[in-house]
Amino acid sequence: MSRSLNGVRVIDLSHVLAMPTCAMILGDLGAEVIKLEPSWGDDSRDFGPWIDKHGKNRSGYFISLNRNKKSITVDLKATKGKEILRDFIKVSDVIIENFRPTTMRKLGFGWEQIHEINPKIIYASICGFGHDSIEEYASRPAYDMVAQAYSGMMSLTGPLGGPPCRIGSSSGDITAGHFSAMGILAALHYRKKTGKGQYIDIAMVDGLFSMLLNAFNDYIAEGVIMEAQGTMDSHITPSQAFQTKYDWVIITAQNDSLWKKYCEVINRNDLIDHPKFKTNSLRTKNRKELLAILEPLMAKKTTKRWIDLFKKEDFTAFPVNNMKDMVENPQTRYRKMIREVDQTGLKKIRMAGTPFHLSETPGDIYAPAPILGEHSEILLKTILGYSQEEIAKLKEEKVVVPDLQV
Amino acid sequence: MSRSLNGVRVIDLSHVLAMPTCAMILGDLGAEVIKLEPSWGDDSRDFGPWIDKHGKNRSGYFISLNRNKKSITVDLKATKGKEILRDFIKVSDVIIENFRPTTMRKLGFGWEQIHEINPKIIYASICGFGHDSIEEYASRPAYDMVAQAYSGMMSLTGPLGGPPCRIGSSSGDITAGHFSAMGILAALHYRKKTGKGQYIDIAMVDGLFSMLLNAFNDYIAEGVIMEAQGTMDSHITPSQAFQTKYDWVIITAQNDSLWKKYCEVINRNDLIDHPKFKTNSLRTKNRKELLAILEPLMAKKTTKRWIDLFKKEDFTAFPVNNMKDMVENPQTRYRKMIREVDQTGLKKIRMAGTPFHLSETPGDIYAPAPILGEHSEILLKTILGYSQEEIAKLKEEKVVVPDLQV
Repeated sequence: MSRSLNGVRVIDLSHVLAMPTCAMILGDLGAEVIKLEPSWGDDSRDFGPWIDKHGKNRSGYFISLNRNKKSITVDLKATKGKEILRDFIKVSDVIIENFRPTTMRKLGFGWEQIHEINPKIIYASICGFGHDSIEEYASRPAYDMVAQAYSGMMSLTGPLGGPPCRIGSSSGDITAGHFSAMGILAALHYRKKTGKGQYIDIAMVDGLFSMLLNAFNDYIAEGVIMEAQGTMDSHITPSQAFQTKYDWVIITAQNDSLWKKYCEVINRNDLIDHPKFKTNSLRTKNRKELLAILEPLMAKKTTKRWIDLFKKEDFTAFPVNNMKDMVENPQTRYRKMIREVDQTGLKKIRMAGTPFHLSETPGDIYAPAPILGEHSEILLKTILGYSQEEIAKLKEEKVVVPDLQV
Repeated sequence: MSRSLNGVRVIDLSHVLAMPTCAMILGDLGAEVIKLEPSWGDDSRDFGPWIDKHGKNRSGYFISLNRNKKSITVDLKATKGKEILRDFIKVSDVIIENFRPTTMRKLGFGWEQIHEINPKIIYASICGFGHDSIEEYASRPAYDMVAQAYSGMMSLTGPLGGPPCRIGSSSGDITAGHFSAMGILAALHYRKKTGKGQYIDIAMVDGLFSMLLNAFNDYIAEGVIMEAQGTMDSHITPSQAFQTKYDWVIITAQNDSLWKKYCEVINRNDLIDHPKFKTNSLRTKNRKELLAILEPLMAKKTTKRWIDLFKKEDFTAFPVNNMKDMVENPQTRYRKMIREVDQTGLKKIRMAGTPFHLSETPGDIYAPAPILGEHSEILLKTILGYSQEEIAKLKEEKVVVPDLQV
């Protein structure tokens, strides 16, 4: 099957989550991703959950993020290891990494060196604050939580008047991966016209900060420091999650005619034209008083019952799904958002699919995550043209580590 | 200055947030984005915060999201309005929208029609559940909160044992915009090789679901339904936000040697080898008991004081920044993440910059958000080649609405 990025080769030095997300997306879209790992493998090979038992090729975390990639293990501290990387740079379109900002320069592969080896290559890095940063942050490692806290995102997330909360997935890492993918694709477009490669410096903090919009605009325009407010909308009432008999339901009455529908369904027609609640601005102003009426009322029926009642009126009401709800959901299956992959040496493994529903070249999972070093030999032979003797020597000298077993 | 996507023309029917985010990114990267608005304008022109006073060209929300775009107002229900859209489709590379799934077909511009008008065009849509969806969701409108709740993201966000919380920015909308941008860029790449356009069907729920990773993997591998846990990490202790004297600080002790450093800084060396706390798995197991010691202790000093103390040891500690902290931050300025734009007819306006730090063709803000209908005449004339008489007639018949004032 044709894929969008067929013919694009990515040499991937990345580890754990942020840049591996970018590499996953490029791979799902058809790029050839060559994951160059140290002898002990990407650190995330040691993260659970485990498939049956502990092992570098049995990490559910690693397997789901690294489908469609190939693995070669190279010691980048060895001179011959550096030569291998140099050879890959010569024949690749893209090189990516998410080390601390100083690591690549220390290895002898700063942007100047990479660009000299192959002026057409696109080099993208992800770190917490950017390679180009004020002194204070220039060499500091940053985890997802740092980006969530530092960017302002955490101050906006959590219950009203309560403690700040993390986004429940590592969005600081993941969105940086998305921005890298967009930057790389744009740079490939530019290169087609000009032949020029370039360097892309993505910061996790920048990525989340660029997503704040309302909170940022409110501060700039009015000096208002927005705070977290649970599931509520600062301008629309009611629009939030309500506790139901055993669970939660979200509803949103975006305008006064929807408010009327809502009141009819909850059987409180007396509230429709109530002088304290009849317009959205009144409801928002008198929110506390209104919620004191609505909360106990919404808690009387189950989520399912409420959703059935609201659906009849085409009024927006949905469950707050957990992982079980989503995995067993016919919609998730219909959209192919769970895929089953034949994992080398293991049983079939389910993983999240791809949101890229393209009619001609859909995102796809066409190969399992690699065993550590699985493609070392074949890549050296077919892509770099090394001889059998050279490869044997590299193995003997432990520059390339022999393949591990599952 | 050269920009990555120079020469790419996007006809943009989108409104409010999800697809306008995609259009903003394409515009920041240099695409020519032609925003085709109804006579009353994109709904978000009526969203605050306001620049000085209420008005369709004074919405801080609209202005920040629609920089770099051009605006033409067209009545798509009128026959001549449809002709204008048809003419734009003929000469564009990309068409995007985020209506309800049925709207484009009703207007006579389903994928089949669009593709027939221009077989090379790329058409991307965003909606809550996907245009291709199970019956139940096929025509339902979905807001950001719906995507956050339905995808599972909301069940993972919030305080431990507390209510579900929204991510503090509209991530369901925004990440769908990101996925659309990636899909479009990949499709442009494919088109360069094959000449073929295609259709991209992005669902907000798919986008957030694809970002859950750990929570999804834990359920698949072990049947564990992950729950929200404030700022804590389920596998690392301590790694979270602590309340300080007036505020919060995040710290993370990712391994036992960092735990030792942490204890030294907080002056509790007795905890380092404490039988209940000496390893990460012990600390995670006895978390409640440990936090009962750490929480009051961390509350005794200010955030600034803690960060200074930890920094000396190169131990990860950062503030939980709010909007004011970020806007006044030298790092935000250094990274050009706040940009000042000369807004037509208004004062200079600050808005969030772009995370695309590309060395040759950086993302950029080179034009202000358009006044409603600002470019109607010039676009009809220069791009579609309409005569002055035709344009006058279209205005007379209110197919194209005359430009409004600021």
